[in-house]
Amino acid sequence: MQTLTVKLQDSSYPILIGPGLIQQPQLVSGHVPGTDLLLVSNTTVAPVYAAQLVRSLAGRRIVEVILPDGEQHKTLATAGRVFDVLVANRFGRDATVVALGGGVVGDLAGFVAACYQRGVAFVQVPTTLLAQVDSAVGGKTAVNHPGGKNLIGAFHQPRAVLTDTELLATLPDRELRAGLAEIIKYGLICDEAFFSWLEQQLPALLHRDPAALAHAILRSCQIKAEIVARDERERADRALLNLGHSFGHAIEAATGYTQWLHGEAVGAGLLMAADLSHRLGNIAAADVARVEALLRRAGLPLAGPQIGAARALEYMGIDKKARAGRLHLVLLKRFGQAVLTGDYPNDALRATLAAHFGGA
Amino acid sequence: MQTLTVKLQDSSYPILIGPGLIQQPQLVSGHVPGTDLLLVSNTTVAPVYAAQLVRSLAGRRIVEVILPDGEQHKTLATAGRVFDVLVANRFGRDATVVALGGGVVGDLAGFVAACYQRGVAFVQVPTTLLAQVDSAVGGKTAVNHPGGKNLIGAFHQPRAVLTDTELLATLPDRELRAGLAEIIKYGLICDEAFFSWLEQQLPALLHRDPAALAHAILRSCQIKAEIVARDERERADRALLNLGHSFGHAIEAATGYTQWLHGEAVGAGLLMAADLSHRLGNIAAADVARVEALLRRAGLPLAGPQIGAARALEYMGIDKKARAGRLHLVLLKRFGQAVLTGDYPNDALRATLAAHFGGA
Repeated sequence: MQTLTVKLQDSSYPILIGPGLIQQPQLVSGHVPGTDLLLVSNTTVAPVYAAQLVRSLAGRRIVEVILPDGEQHKTLATAGRVFDVLVANRFGRDATVVALGGGVVGDLAGFVAACYQRGVAFVQVPTTLLAQVDSAVGGKTAVNHPGGKNLIGAFHQPRAVLTDTELLATLPDRELRAGLAEIIKYGLICDEAFFSWLEQQLPALLHRDPAALAHAILRSCQIKAEIVARDERERADRALLNLGHSFGHAIEAATGYTQWLHGEAVGAGLLMAADLSHRLGNIAAADVARVEALLRRAGLPLAGPQIGAARALEYMGIDKKARAGRLHLVLLKRFGQAVLTGDYPNDALRATLAAHFGGA
Repeated sequence: MQTLTVKLQDSSYPILIGPGLIQQPQLVSGHVPGTDLLLVSNTTVAPVYAAQLVRSLAGRRIVEVILPDGEQHKTLATAGRVFDVLVANRFGRDATVVALGGGVVGDLAGFVAACYQRGVAFVQVPTTLLAQVDSAVGGKTAVNHPGGKNLIGAFHQPRAVLTDTELLATLPDRELRAGLAEIIKYGLICDEAFFSWLEQQLPALLHRDPAALAHAILRSCQIKAEIVARDERERADRALLNLGHSFGHAIEAATGYTQWLHGEAVGAGLLMAADLSHRLGNIAAADVARVEALLRRAGLPLAGPQIGAARALEYMGIDKKARAGRLHLVLLKRFGQAVLTGDYPNDALRATLAAHFGGA
């Protein structure tokens, strides 16, 4: 088992990474505070893993909320139903919300924990590769709005992240690939050596080699933890973690959050970010090809819905990265180094969008 | 004009108190950041004061949301409608939410500001006495749940509180009296001299004497600011500000948040807190009589709905002050000094509740 600490001003917390964690009562118990627990999971994950986790939390009062699976349920209305369960069971301020699931479950349960009685304790038990390397780490919680992803949310740090790598055994291939997109993102943001390692180890990762997956998760969490420690509230550097996300959000929003997995959209977004970075002269055509090749080998879809550049831009406009009317984007300054910038010609952005979304 | 500073670790901010503030463009403009403003008000306040405030913010893009008036609208559903307006108007992270209204408007608008894009700037322009002395100060935001008041919320500090004492000119008498209940609370919590001053100045306050009101507001905000500075997140001392609130919440919840004003319920709650404190031997019967006399002179209702002690206790049980199964209450340690305690006989609590709510 590996332990990483996310060091924040007010609330440092551990990320534990290893096989079989949730079956170790002492370990689980030691990282879940409180006696009243709300276990939030979904209809896919709960039947397979909830019982193991509950066994490791014997002696606590545990109420389970099983949500329908899917991004389309990450709404204020679903959060409202979870609040109802907390109130109906008379959970107090000393309650702990435990999220067992992927990004949707973690984001929504975290938002509920942030707001219930103005904040109760929260523990993440991520079950997808994407959640293990990204969404479960860093304290961003949110629900979606029909007008955009994650528009309603809070910063609310977990007390602990329990990353059991064995939970990935039952993860569908498609979800594994979506998680790889976020892992590739870390290499592009700030670690070209890690990107090269991913190029070499991709077959092992796709075959779910435990050692390769564990290293990829650990390195991803290290990078994210370092960036979040520098800028918890996303006033500067943390925005770099959104590489590919503004483009990806347009795909997700245009398709109603139902057809593309978040990680898939981010993968396609990484390619668009690379494409635009190349148009600005920051990276070579060969670099774009290198990004595209790795994403393709990871089995990720790269062609966006043919909605046209104008509509894509519209979907990007409401994105959280918008500042004072000018759309700031995370792009590559050079290969393996991301930068947040509003300094790009609109024509170049339109050309990138037209190349991926079609039309004018 | 008087200026007070709420000194917090991350975000100190000013409370400006004086007559005619919202008609001074330079002053208003200097304390409202951003160019995109969402002005949240209600159908009672907006027709009278919104135009003045908007004039003082000339040059900004201002979208107005006018909510129906009343505590029953302080819900997650109403917050959802305000989020819709922000999204529909493509407000970004640099938006500022301005609350023009009483506690309901301020609490709800503040909660929306806390959650929109994980937090945007927020300015309070309180228009009721209760909001000016209590709810607009300290960063507590929330909406109600059918199972209890303020169960869904966030700590989100305003950038500034603009307290225009002239706005009280149109306040209904009943609302003025409700605000006086919270002012009386501050005397009971930690300032017996202020309580004595209130006993002397009550006629002036009821006649809306500007100097008397200004002093009462300033002293109340000073006390609240000091306590909040010591304990922003209510881990200790801040709970003292809830004197009378646990009892009051039972009244409000039992009557569906529609019959009693919050301040009225707090007033009746102060008397119950005093009654229980007397049963514990902390204060004399004469002290209880002193509290009751001042509340009565302020014209506040004191008889709770006759729901019986058992149901009242049930309504108190889900209250946020509940910790680990034992209901902690804010009581008086001596006259003019409050304390948070779980150390009271259940029989004494039941006797207090039976005396006020009837039945067994």
